[in-house]
Amino acid sequence: MRFHTRKWVKPEDLNPNGSLFGGRLLAWIDEEAALYTTIQLENSKVVTKYISEINFMASARQGDIVEIGIDVKKFGTSSLTLICEVRNKMTRETILTVDNIIMVNLGADGTPSPHGKTKIEFVRDRLPS
Amino acid sequence: MRFHTRKWVKPEDLNPNGSLFGGRLLAWIDEEAALYTTIQLENSKVVTKYISEINFMASARQGDIVEIGIDVKKFGTSSLTLICEVRNKMTRETILTVDNIIMVNLGADGTPSPHGKTKIEFVRDRLPS
Amino acid sequence: MRFHTRKWVKPEDLNPNGSLFGGRLLAWIDEEAALYTTIQLENSKVVTKYISEINFMASARQGDIVEIGIDVKKFGTSSLTLICEVRNKMTRETILTVDNIIMVNLGADGTPSPHGKTKIEFVRDRLPS
Amino acid sequence: MRFHTRKWVKPEDLNPNGSLFGGRLLAWIDEEAALYTTIQLENSKVVTKYISEINFMASARQGDIVEIGIDVKKFGTSSLTLICEVRNKMTRETILTVDNIIMVNLGADGTPSPHGKTKIEFVRDRLPS
Amino acid sequence: MRFHTRKWVKPEDLNPNGSLFGGRLLAWIDEEAALYTTIQLENSKVVTKYISEINFMASARQGDIVEIGIDVKKFGTSSLTLICEVRNKMTRETILTVDNIIMVNLGADGTPSPHGKTKIEFVRDRLPS
Amino acid sequence: MRFHTRKWVKPEDLNPNGSLFGGRLLAWIDEEAALYTTIQLENSKVVTKYISEINFMASARQGDIVEIGIDVKKFGTSSLTLICEVRNKMTRETILTVDNIIMVNLGADGTPSPHGKTKIEFVRDRLPS
Repeated sequence: MRFHTRKWVKPEDLNPNGSLFGGRLLAWIDEEAALYTTIQLENSKVVTKYISEINFMASARQGDIVEIGIDVKKFGTSSLTLICEVRNKMTRETILTVDNIIMVNLGADGTPSPHGKTKIEFVRDRLPS
Repeated sequence: MRFHTRKWVKPEDLNPNGSLFGGRLLAWIDEEAALYTTIQLENSKVVTKYISEINFMASARQGDIVEIGIDVKKFGTSSLTLICEVRNKMTRETILTVDNIIMVNLGADGTPSPHGKTKIEFVRDRLPS
Repeated sequence: MRFHTRKWVKPEDLNPNGSLFGGRLLAWIDEEAALYTTIQLENSKVVTKYISEINFMASARQGDIVEIGIDVKKFGTSSLTLICEVRNKMTRETILTVDNIIMVNLGADGTPSPHGKTKIEFVRDRLPS
Repeated sequence: MRFHTRKWVKPEDLNPNGSLFGGRLLAWIDEEAALYTTIQLENSKVVTKYISEINFMASARQGDIVEIGIDVKKFGTSSLTLICEVRNKMTRETILTVDNIIMVNLGADGTPSPHGKTKIEFVRDRLPS
Repeated sequence: MRFHTRKWVKPEDLNPNGSLFGGRLLAWIDEEAALYTTIQLENSKVVTKYISEINFMASARQGDIVEIGIDVKKFGTSSLTLICEVRNKMTRETILTVDNIIMVNLGADGTPSPHGKTKIEFVRDRLPS
Repeated sequence: MRFHTRKWVKPEDLNPNGSLFGGRLLAWIDEEAALYTTIQLENSKVVTKYISEINFMASARQGDIVEIGIDVKKFGTSSLTLICEVRNKMTRETILTVDNIIMVNLGADGTPSPHGKTKIEFVRDRLPS
């Protein structure tokens, strides 16, 4: 699993108990899943269709750095299934895991559309050398 | 199920495709679950422990009004299990459902603590008449 | 008066003194008035025209839950006059009251337009059975 | 009346109809009233107690610049009464006016406290030369 | 240099160390530069092209009021060069200075376009008397 | 240079011209610099002291994905000098570069303090195996 995006837990991200607001964390994950999918499918019209169960294993506090890891589980015809782990950057403690996030590729008309991809690609391999 | 909180989908809530950003919706649900739990358990130190699978059945667009419904599924010793449905206020179309959201009651030391509640209560019945 | 929307006072909602920022509360009220009007008039093109005097009777602190109540005072030809109360969900202490919020119904051209409504309606009565 | 703070109407400030969200404007006014009071009373523990009726005379659109003017109407013993006008910076069209905003000076214990001020002061006159 | 816009440092503006988040301050400056340019060039299609070195000389804390000063350094053909200082409103301590912010005037096609301005103008002098 | 954090340009990140608000981009960079420094210095009390000139070479539009790259230029006694590049993830077009961002390590008393680091470290090498 590759961990890319990192977030710094600031006061605006806290719940009233002073720990990271779970809803903020879910929003971060959904954004990461959407942009990861856009990169893989080379299409920015993607939507979240399904998120499997989410286990909050640890919290984070103000000043902590969390990093979000995503990997591909399966390339469907018009979908992409991802797996996600969020962990504390400094301690590597797992904060939460999600086993399946199903993202759907949309066509110009806004309905599911085949994406033609079958494996992970890197942007560097797509660019002309 | 009681539907209380309503949200007006504003430009700041949209994803780049112009529909409601899924992450924003998840944040709204988590906040509603947390405050519902605080009301029931009469304790503001509560955390989200687990969210079961989330099915995004429909989206919402700018100007739509969504309402969030919560009901109690089970009173545990130190937890509360909720069920949630989000729907479009004007059409009653279901936007998403979550079957189990487990919220945990924390004591002063931040660890799970029995809450002593066994059934839904209304704030009006708690107040002196 | 019906109290629907609830808000959880989080760190991002505080003023530098650590109590609920009054401006945030006013924004919440204006949003609630707008969406309530949209529901009643079945039109999302509505604007706030007038807000009568606002008395801040109590404040709220981090972790408090506030709920916003709205009722209709008068159906005008192209307007709707609302009354609003915000209170602390747990103690029912009144935080503020506003006696008159005048919302205007706009037509497709953006000017005031008759809405044809004369009494409160419930969405459930509008939907086909 | 002095007009100081200026705001640039960005997409995040819009309501679903694409004009400036009234609630955002109210939040801007409340912040301006609070900081103006802090400057005059040399105390950052101030709260909004009362806002007289608000007339929305015009709206603003994306890209507009609005400026907020404040003047003092009356120095009370532990309060300060302000008058406010918001206008479009480029056209000087009035967007809204508020005749009375009563701000209260708080002491260290959080209760109203005499502020000892009787007239507008400028920061430059307070600083040692 | 004229100081106009003032900001009240609220909890949502803090970094995890509890002082003003530098990124927030940079966003405030960029907004002020953009709207100042819009006012001078009478064109809302302006972009930031270059910002010279930024020296953070002091920080600000929750409850502080910062004010942002802008002056024109040079009118180019299709650009405007600004100088900026941010200071603490109450103490006049300088928080940061930027010697050159180059803003570019865009035409309807989005490319740099001559603005025809050669000196600072005041809006009041442009309005019909 | 390692590119980690990625951002999805959403409507809330736009300026009134519909392209990425430069101030938002500056805030993203400052956050990335701060958290990168925290990781390297193993200290979350770090502040931005100096940012060298910033050249905005290209913009980004709604739906674009931008990635932020950081590298270390120099380890000082109580500071860390970084170099930063922001580029479009899909096209690798450079959006902006910053040659020097000087971050300062603070001690418990809030003043600059030696950090004892002399080269880039990876978190994985610090953790017990």
